Amino acid sequence: MRDIGAAVIGTGFIGSVHLNTLRRLGVPVAGVLGSSPSRGAERAKALGVPRAYGSLDELLADPAVQVVHVTSPNVAHYPQVKAILGAGKHVICEKPLSMTSAQSADMLALARASGKIAAVCYNTRFYPLNQHAHGMMSAGELGDLRLITGQFHQDWLAKETDWNWRLEADEGGPLRSVSDIGTHWVDLTNFITGQKPVAVMAELATFIPERQKPLGPVETFTTATGATETRKIATDDAATILLRYGNGGRGVLTTSQISHGRRGLLTWDISGSKASAAWSAEAPENLWIGHREAPNQILLRDPSLMNPFGAAASGMPGGHPEGFADTWAAFFSQVYADVARGSRGPQSTWASFEDGHYEMLFCDAVLESAAQGTWVNIAGGN
Amino acid sequence: MRDIGAAVIGTGFIGSVHLNTLRRLGVPVAGVLGSSPSRGAERAKALGVPRAYGSLDELLADPAVQVVHVTSPNVAHYPQVKAILGAGKHVICEKPLSMTSAQSADMLALARASGKIAAVCYNTRFYPLNQHAHGMMSAGELGDLRLITGQFHQDWLAKETDWNWRLEADEGGPLRSVSDIGTHWVDLTNFITGQKPVAVMAELATFIPERQKPLGPVETFTTATGATETRKIATDDAATILLRYGNGGRGVLTTSQISHGRRGLLTWDISGSKASAAWSAEAPENLWIGHREAPNQILLRDPSLMNPFGAAASGMPGGHPEGFADTWAAFFSQVYADVARGSRGPQSTWASFEDGHYEMLFCDAVLESAAQGTWVNIAGGN
Amino acid sequence: MRDIGAAVIGTGFIGSVHLNTLRRLGVPVAGVLGSSPSRGAERAKALGVPRAYGSLDELLADPAVQVVHVTSPNVAHYPQVKAILGAGKHVICEKPLSMTSAQSADMLALARASGKIAAVCYNTRFYPLNQHAHGMMSAGELGDLRLITGQFHQDWLAKETDWNWRLEADEGGPLRSVSDIGTHWVDLTNFITGQKPVAVMAELATFIPERQKPLGPVETFTTATGATETRKIATDDAATILLRYGNGGRGVLTTSQISHGRRGLLTWDISGSKASAAWSAEAPENLWIGHREAPNQILLRDPSLMNPFGAAASGMPGGHPEGFADTWAAFFSQVYADVARGSRGPQSTWASFEDGHYEMLFCDAVLESAAQGTWVNIAGGN
Amino acid sequence: MRDIGAAVIGTGFIGSVHLNTLRRLGVPVAGVLGSSPSRGAERAKALGVPRAYGSLDELLADPAVQVVHVTSPNVAHYPQVKAILGAGKHVICEKPLSMTSAQSADMLALARASGKIAAVCYNTRFYPLNQHAHGMMSAGELGDLRLITGQFHQDWLAKETDWNWRLEADEGGPLRSVSDIGTHWVDLTNFITGQKPVAVMAELATFIPERQKPLGPVETFTTATGATETRKIATDDAATILLRYGNGGRGVLTTSQISHGRRGLLTWDISGSKASAAWSAEAPENLWIGHREAPNQILLRDPSLMNPFGAAASGMPGGHPEGFADTWAAFFSQVYADVARGSRGPQSTWASFEDGHYEMLFCDAVLESAAQGTWVNIAGGN
Repeated sequence: MRDIGAAVIGTGFIGSVHLNTLRRLGVPVAGVLGSSPSRGAERAKALGVPRAYGSLDELLADPAVQVVHVTSPNVAHYPQVKAILGAGKHVICEKPLSMTSAQSADMLALARASGKIAAVCYNTRFYPLNQHAHGMMSAGELGDLRLITGQFHQDWLAKETDWNWRLEADEGGPLRSVSDIGTHWVDLTNFITGQKPVAVMAELATFIPERQKPLGPVETFTTATGATETRKIATDDAATILLRYGNGGRGVLTTSQISHGRRGLLTWDISGSKASAAWSAEAPENLWIGHREAPNQILLRDPSLMNPFGAAASGMPGGHPEGFADTWAAFFSQVYADVARGSRGPQSTWASFEDGHYEMLFCDAVLESAAQGTWVNIAGGN
Repeated sequence: MRDIGAAVIGTGFIGSVHLNTLRRLGVPVAGVLGSSPSRGAERAKALGVPRAYGSLDELLADPAVQVVHVTSPNVAHYPQVKAILGAGKHVICEKPLSMTSAQSADMLALARASGKIAAVCYNTRFYPLNQHAHGMMSAGELGDLRLITGQFHQDWLAKETDWNWRLEADEGGPLRSVSDIGTHWVDLTNFITGQKPVAVMAELATFIPERQKPLGPVETFTTATGATETRKIATDDAATILLRYGNGGRGVLTTSQISHGRRGLLTWDISGSKASAAWSAEAPENLWIGHREAPNQILLRDPSLMNPFGAAASGMPGGHPEGFADTWAAFFSQVYADVARGSRGPQSTWASFEDGHYEMLFCDAVLESAAQGTWVNIAGGN
Repeated sequence: MRDIGAAVIGTGFIGSVHLNTLRRLGVPVAGVLGSSPSRGAERAKALGVPRAYGSLDELLADPAVQVVHVTSPNVAHYPQVKAILGAGKHVICEKPLSMTSAQSADMLALARASGKIAAVCYNTRFYPLNQHAHGMMSAGELGDLRLITGQFHQDWLAKETDWNWRLEADEGGPLRSVSDIGTHWVDLTNFITGQKPVAVMAELATFIPERQKPLGPVETFTTATGATETRKIATDDAATILLRYGNGGRGVLTTSQISHGRRGLLTWDISGSKASAAWSAEAPENLWIGHREAPNQILLRDPSLMNPFGAAASGMPGGHPEGFADTWAAFFSQVYADVARGSRGPQSTWASFEDGHYEMLFCDAVLESAAQGTWVNIAGGN
Repeated sequence: MRDIGAAVIGTGFIGSVHLNTLRRLGVPVAGVLGSSPSRGAERAKALGVPRAYGSLDELLADPAVQVVHVTSPNVAHYPQVKAILGAGKHVICEKPLSMTSAQSADMLALARASGKIAAVCYNTRFYPLNQHAHGMMSAGELGDLRLITGQFHQDWLAKETDWNWRLEADEGGPLRSVSDIGTHWVDLTNFITGQKPVAVMAELATFIPERQKPLGPVETFTTATGATETRKIATDDAATILLRYGNGGRGVLTTSQISHGRRGLLTWDISGSKASAAWSAEAPENLWIGHREAPNQILLRDPSLMNPFGAAASGMPGGHPEGFADTWAAFFSQVYADVARGSRGPQSTWASFEDGHYEMLFCDAVLESAAQGTWVNIAGGN
């Protein structure tokens, strides 16, 4: 992967994560594209990147670039990805894939037609124990899915003085907690269970109907100071969602960005017909495995104890904790191997545009269900 | 409370818990009533109780008995409680209070008219940290309720060869996991939050549609051997439930009796407008308190660190773990103090027949919602 | 055991624990003996006990008493136990057994000669998972003992204004943390491993050399108010101790009564040649079992998953947490069964006077080692 | 730091960690030096490094190299570091610093004389919560050190068929568990407490006196196959160690490489005169803070809640778990900033050669104490 050149669109928090991961893997990063030419130039210097492109066209014209990473705000994903695929380059796009499922359907069709690698950044799949759980489930070790519960709770928008561009529907889309973090959970558990929910019953809640918007810019996960204006907020601070799976399994998901003391508590808990398993992002190196007639187990991440999926995603021997940054290394490592190969490998586990498009359909169904107060079927569930 | 005589109806697992708790508190137990006179006599001897009544009438005629504990199967609660209150005795009844809300409405009216103490056995309230959480919430320390999530998961009915009388609707009622364990969660969280859900959206699941029923008797939490017959099962192995609260708060509850490795995992997690709190019955001596702008806290049960509600329910200093049996001691201790006083004390926290009746209305709404696939309002919510 | 009469010497915190446990088991308690006749009368009334003895002689003369529980201050154990055994009664004595090993040697000889049941109150053995660990170790499931580490840390004497009679050597003996809580750990791990340390290397520390002694009385685990006087303290606030076992195994124990935030953190962690195990009194319903070539296990207390030792000590099915009070019920239940039988049962696991005497020899060795700064052999180790 | 060139000696597991970290930070790596020229060439190709040096001289002659990372076996540290400093380059050396304290004394003198940056790889300091704990302790938030306990337990040498070069004294030195992992604990806790033990009482244990040595090569943390020969082993499988601090504080450390199920369980637990704190490498994102008169706290790593030391070492916002790899990034980032500055910064927290030399003196004292069975003073303690 050291011969494949990359460029990164977006230079904020998650853009830096992409950049640092590429460096760690030895992938040459040709340049970055900022939100404006001057911002891009400033960030390129700060980040030590050789070049700041003046425009997407300039980026796409750079022959050193074979893979483009899209970390811009959600609203920009659609036009950028179309241009990238149109230019014959591979693309790794942040989630959610787009603003609407019509866009993501287009993007999926383009990706298929292009034959290029097109990945969505659901990095959470790449915690090695999530990969291991995927392997356990596909090998039938837990039996059939009966019940899955889980959550993704944060607190960074718990106060009315907290602000972020995602709060307003025109920039982040009509959903917030469901779209921004809920789709992480949906993607992760779809990956693990091998199923996609077929119907959803959702309730959306906005507990803080008015917030103070700073007049100046705000970085994600930072707090602004200075003058503000009051804005009405309609996007979801939290959501409570019931799920139905094609095999008769049931599920529950809650999302929240207002839970004091929870920074990024993504959890899942699967009750299968043979055994159970559970995992939490707050203790990502432990997989709980539940038994009725034997002691429960805690699998501490260790390649020597894991199935091939888990072992492949482990960058370290046991006893050397891995974290968020390491999931990106495992993720990109697999994608770039597929770029080198020219197609998705048979054992590859990164989220495809099919997955990203499903997440958009899921969001559509959530919105419709919440509006109607009834169950809504999800196209693309299985 | 050592002058107040008690009798216990039912001599199974939970009947023994009642009996042992009464003894520990020094309450004289006059006798027990078994499922049949011979069973009663046999159990009285085994349990070291002076007398086995031949009938409820005989029990009620015993002047040594002032308080009657009802631990019989659900279907017997209604007639027995009516007779007990009619005989002018106090009653402590196992949950759920009855088979239908019509019955519980009657029982509530009778209890009010009688002026007797009438308690329902939601003992989980009496884990001292649940009492403490109740105190925190009523003092406004968590702010307004925004989101509450939780579960009660067990595994004792995870296999098709598991059998219990609760599986069949005619003995245990049309609901199973919701009625047997879900109402524990509802009662507990109503107690803590000071609110009762006003609407519910429920989904019921029966993953094991046919089970093997032993031809002989089975004790709760034991496994039968011998010949069986196949029975179709319609009651819920699990349920997934959304909740709406009167103040705009939202909730999620899941119940399961088929989750391998979970013996009695009752948890709740409250996101308030000021702070969060969470508790698990698997670690009942720890209360998690969540903050946005300070480290989270773990309150290890200790009377010296707790509010009056928590301290009053603590039987031991910190560092001496309490458990299930101790909740009964705190519960009965408070009820018998009220019996001695002749009325419910102003700081009493045991579940009343009002609470027990609400739980029946909750079950009605769950059944209706699951049948219709829509939200259903709950009479009695607030 | 409902025909065997008991009396309790001492009416403080631990005396109440004895009393409540006896009641719960249905053992008739004939009376109590207080620190003075008036204190005894007052406490008997408060505790609902029929009789307060005016003296030990009066107690011993009561034909209703077959078993005497000794919960008086350490200094009184020796004369009281001698009198009890001399009177032909069974005895259950609080730990540590005596003030000196000369006393405990005498007590052991008397107990042997008497043929009576003579137990020491190391109740911690009776957490069911400690019983289970004992069973695992004796069945060879962990292999040979290699390394054992652990602690007993509390914080109730962390401040110079904390006071208790144990602080002064003339009432509590020359050791404090080692004697009061360290011997709990030694007894427990001796029971589990089936070995008694053969040599010790100890270091004693008094971090608070002067304390404020209240002029009035102080109950254990309570805080006094009012006038105080300054007293020099020579007993150990904490101790750090290395251990050698007869089979070549090694150990480490620390005791502390000054560790802020630790109320009763007794832990042990055994590395055997085949597997490991660990337990903590802060999570007494979980036993960690460690493997090199398989996932680690968490055994959640459940009689259906435990060996006969663990199952016998379990009063409740899984999913119903047990605690400190329940250990006493399991402990006394076994002792009274042996009283009924007339001798220690072949599977009995309560601490004998042999064990209690060993603990005194251990304390002797600790004192000598700390004074000399060298390893000291322990008579009675094996 | 993107103008400073580096080279790495050693291409095994830890060499790769160095290399990947440098890449992630954008530090250009000029080349590597393998255990032989052919091994070096092969590894350079595999790792994507531009150059493999044929010898240390060749490496030192490369003007592109300003900082040399030493990850060779312990026995090579001394001559290599001397040459590196002699060549006027900065050095980052793996731990332990040398085979003997005579060597490390020399190395320290050379480092001082050179004025170059000379760091030792005690990366564990750079878990952000360890940095935070250092800040808490230096600000007096825990009060005076009273008691510190802890361990570093692994299981990779638990079986007699496990082999590694560290097992034999002539390659790894006379100590093994103490030197390889114990010094990690000593360095970390010295950093946090601001003190260095002044005396030690140690016991060394070799539970597996004979092992099977493979005739072919073995990588650390891997298992060999094929023919073996029996070798007698004299180095420590485990050690139990008492510590005395200059202020009267006491400590206990155990090290083990034979504890089944523990992959890298490094823990510390400090009882201060005002409060307590504890941390475990198995849950590195949580710091436990203990209080006597308030609930205990769990600080979940988050720069917004940490002191400047902790915040500076955090690469991610809260809710994005950091791990082992991230400690290296924080560590090297600080060292390279000091290289750029030309001297150690006033707030720098990396382990110096003074620290590394102390660790060697500590090992000397451990060996002497274990041989004599007495306390031994440590030169350099404070």
